[in-house]
Amino acid sequence: MTSSPAGRGRPRDQRSGASIMKAAGELLIENGYAGLSIGAVAARAGVGKDTVYRRWPGKPELVYEAVFTAADTADVPDTGTLADDLAAVVQSLIEEFAAPPAAAALPGLLADFAAAPELRATIRTRFLKPAKERLVVVFDRAEQRGETGEDLQVDLVLDTLAGAVFFHLGIIGERPGPDLARRIAQVIAKGIEAR
Amino acid sequence: MTSSPAGRGRPRDQRSGASIMKAAGELLIENGYAGLSIGAVAARAGVGKDTVYRRWPGKPELVYEAVFTAADTADVPDTGTLADDLAAVVQSLIEEFAAPPAAAALPGLLADFAAAPELRATIRTRFLKPAKERLVVVFDRAEQRGETGEDLQVDLVLDTLAGAVFFHLGIIGERPGPDLARRIAQVIAKGIEAR
Repeated sequence: MTSSPAGRGRPRDQRSGASIMKAAGELLIENGYAGLSIGAVAARAGVGKDTVYRRWPGKPELVYEAVFTAADTADVPDTGTLADDLAAVVQSLIEEFAAPPAAAALPGLLADFAAAPELRATIRTRFLKPAKERLVVVFDRAEQRGETGEDLQVDLVLDTLAGAVFFHLGIIGERPGPDLARRIAQVIAKGIEAR
Repeated sequence: MTSSPAGRGRPRDQRSGASIMKAAGELLIENGYAGLSIGAVAARAGVGKDTVYRRWPGKPELVYEAVFTAADTADVPDTGTLADDLAAVVQSLIEEFAAPPAAAALPGLLADFAAAPELRATIRTRFLKPAKERLVVVFDRAEQRGETGEDLQVDLVLDTLAGAVFFHLGIIGERPGPDLARRIAQVIAKGIEAR
């Protein structure tokens, strides 16, 4: 979903979208992923089910957007070095995965996504697109500063960063220490820096 | 589960263990994870259910071991360089995740593990232990060759490697290209090498 800049588009749609996202987050914490239904989300948001279905084909897409794309509106970090920019990106991923709605949604959401080829196909083209765009900006700056070479494989780095965070939090289930983002980012930054 | 060296221990237990693992793999391909039951596995393996439960507390633990620990008996790679050793480790992870029983098991297995604190607790102490032990050997050799420093964080690297493979295959669902292991390993190796 492309978000419209404030003040443009249809205000009622923006408000209902925000209400739906908020309702989904609340219901995930209250009842978990399995217990969540589109009907309950619509009722909590004060909209009709058709309003929900107009924007999201189904539960996995709605929950994914409610839980995992909040940070997409964050500014692209510009700290001056690749390692610190990456640490900021990783920190925002950690905060997304560790938030209560995400923790509640992750198991069931994973199962639904991994089992459905049509959903998997949307992960790159839709859901990872904002994160990838931010990484591209970070890498362009790094290349201009001479920190990286020209043949950087953005998808590979994105998968590695997201995978490291997801595995550490979502599978191992360890509470992230305060320096986890920096430690992951340091390994990756050093791994892709030009010699 | 610690495997006994050939010829020691109780041969009948080793044969039944192997039959159970084989049965689980077959049934995963035939019916998927949700449709798999301990009773069906026991019947296919020609053992009683108690034989299965004596070794595995439940379905997630049994399926995890059947699907994701086959490569633990592989020799520790010793290619002479950190990057090539890591590429071999990553390649074995890729082969595990891409095998048909693993692909069939992954969504449901993830959901069960991530949702159960007691299962999550066993992931580090039991299931990742063999992979970590192999990485420790690889890193010790790298340190002796002067490729890495002394303060290498093995858990972090293991999470990053496993996470990158798991995310790429299990979530994104892309078929691994022939050089994926090498590309992931190169980034990680360079990221942890001593300057």
